[in-house]
Amino acid sequence: MDKQMLRDTSRRISPYIHNTPIFTSHLLDDMTGAKLFFKCENFQKMGAFKMRGAVNAVLQLTKEERERGVVTHSSGNFAQALSLAAKNLDVPAYIVMPNNAPKVKKDAVVGYGGIITACEPNINAREEAAAKIVAKKGATFVHPSNDLNVILGNATVGMELLNAHPNLDMIVAPVGGGGLIAGTALSSHVFGKNCKVIGGEPLVADDAYRSLESGQIETNYSTNTVADGLRTQLGDINFPIIQQYVDHIIRVEEVEIIQAMKLLWERLKIVIEPSSAVAFAAVLKNKDYFKDKRVGIILSGGNVDLETIRFS
Amino acid sequence: MDKQMLRDTSRRISPYIHNTPIFTSHLLDDMTGAKLFFKCENFQKMGAFKMRGAVNAVLQLTKEERERGVVTHSSGNFAQALSLAAKNLDVPAYIVMPNNAPKVKKDAVVGYGGIITACEPNINAREEAAAKIVAKKGATFVHPSNDLNVILGNATVGMELLNAHPNLDMIVAPVGGGGLIAGTALSSHVFGKNCKVIGGEPLVADDAYRSLESGQIETNYSTNTVADGLRTQLGDINFPIIQQYVDHIIRVEEVEIIQAMKLLWERLKIVIEPSSAVAFAAVLKNKDYFKDKRVGIILSGGNVDLETIRFS
Repeated sequence: MDKQMLRDTSRRISPYIHNTPIFTSHLLDDMTGAKLFFKCENFQKMGAFKMRGAVNAVLQLTKEERERGVVTHSSGNFAQALSLAAKNLDVPAYIVMPNNAPKVKKDAVVGYGGIITACEPNINAREEAAAKIVAKKGATFVHPSNDLNVILGNATVGMELLNAHPNLDMIVAPVGGGGLIAGTALSSHVFGKNCKVIGGEPLVADDAYRSLESGQIETNYSTNTVADGLRTQLGDINFPIIQQYVDHIIRVEEVEIIQAMKLLWERLKIVIEPSSAVAFAAVLKNKDYFKDKRVGIILSGGNVDLETIRFS
Repeated sequence: MDKQMLRDTSRRISPYIHNTPIFTSHLLDDMTGAKLFFKCENFQKMGAFKMRGAVNAVLQLTKEERERGVVTHSSGNFAQALSLAAKNLDVPAYIVMPNNAPKVKKDAVVGYGGIITACEPNINAREEAAAKIVAKKGATFVHPSNDLNVILGNATVGMELLNAHPNLDMIVAPVGGGGLIAGTALSSHVFGKNCKVIGGEPLVADDAYRSLESGQIETNYSTNTVADGLRTQLGDINFPIIQQYVDHIIRVEEVEIIQAMKLLWERLKIVIEPSSAVAFAAVLKNKDYFKDKRVGIILSGGNVDLETIRFS
């Protein structure tokens, strides 16, 4: 992994993504005692950083592979990201979604041109359905987080943050499937000046925290978190990167996630999804650790169902 | 009114305000058939365009006047704006607020250094309380919307929009007390190239619409609108400007305001207050009129009580 590889990735995907703005807030700085730089991936195309990895994965396909299409299983942002990335490049996108996925999410995938295959809502059924499409169509499977091209695409978030603010002491990112924090760890390792990478993870879905403790991939006992983008599991490609380059992971409770989200909506005047608030919640929970530091915080996305949000 | 006067205003207030970003959205363009440019005053200091007029008013005071302070009556954004503007310049700010104003609003004023005087919740009591402070402290009264310095400060919103996009066909602004749309009308007249200014107003508080019809200042029969920043009345300073330079006013219903606000939160991923959504609601309601036009839309502020917001 070197600078050139990440720069090539950034150059490759740049026509299809936004270099998203970085927000600051005196009030939130005063509240935490740190100097905070919020990287606003809620303003990314289709509303989340996932677009970066999806675009990079599709761009790496050969002409023949592009004709045969891509397939993934996701009910979240990656389903939409791969659909839009593929549409931009005239590639068919087959999306395996559980048959109980909300209509609004299915509509979004269809809106971006994805072709949905419904399956039973469990991981075996998902993987089987995806494998069938690979076999039948010759499509290339792209995992939402455990895929090196996806991780490299995601790494451009941290790269842009460090380009704009080279002297960050640390970057905090939410941890779900591990694809964002692994990418952030790579970019921080390559472009940072002793810039630590720290994860924020929901306590009720803390597979990454426990995996770092035990040294092997642990599974989630539950995934009952409001941070719906973080219910997924680490994988064997991103875990070694996380082990090597992530300093530590801070676990936060559900109420802390909601409070952090409310603060960001109120003070930054931006709509972010609960998963995005987890990194900031980790900073709020450990103010002493971040005191007087220059801290990048990755706000991963803004796709939230407003009809289900309640702050009171 | 000439270019130099507005440029001087802009230069004067620029150290104290943000030149706020302008957002665009392919999806909202497709939905309306227009090319839309959203001026995001929700990202303005203290969260609303009101900061511009307040700063301009305070900066126009003599040294002696600054020592004696400023006074206004407002329960909304202008109370906070004048408090912060005055604080920045080390000027005392006396804020008359109704005794039933929400605690969160009083706290915000105190947070910005304003000195609150409580009064009965009616316009006579407000004006009396303000007059007493003027008499006792020698403070200068600054009206939230019916004040030329405030209107000139507000005019910098449209000026920035036209600096960035000189060929706008029209600018749409919400209409409450008339201070924003009067300022917008001035900047459009001076800097636009046949750029029309159009107002959006809640149907249930349509004093400005009826005033333009009748040719004299009409009063609101009710002010029961979700757009709490637009419950106020036109004044004798801004009305003549509105008469001369505003093309027309489009009235929107409450449900249209909420729907427009939801669309903006979902698609632009920004938090705006209901008053801000009124201008966009006017465009959504009259798509044929705006079709194929380049339309600036002023999103006036982002101060919303999240605990009271319900989209379902």
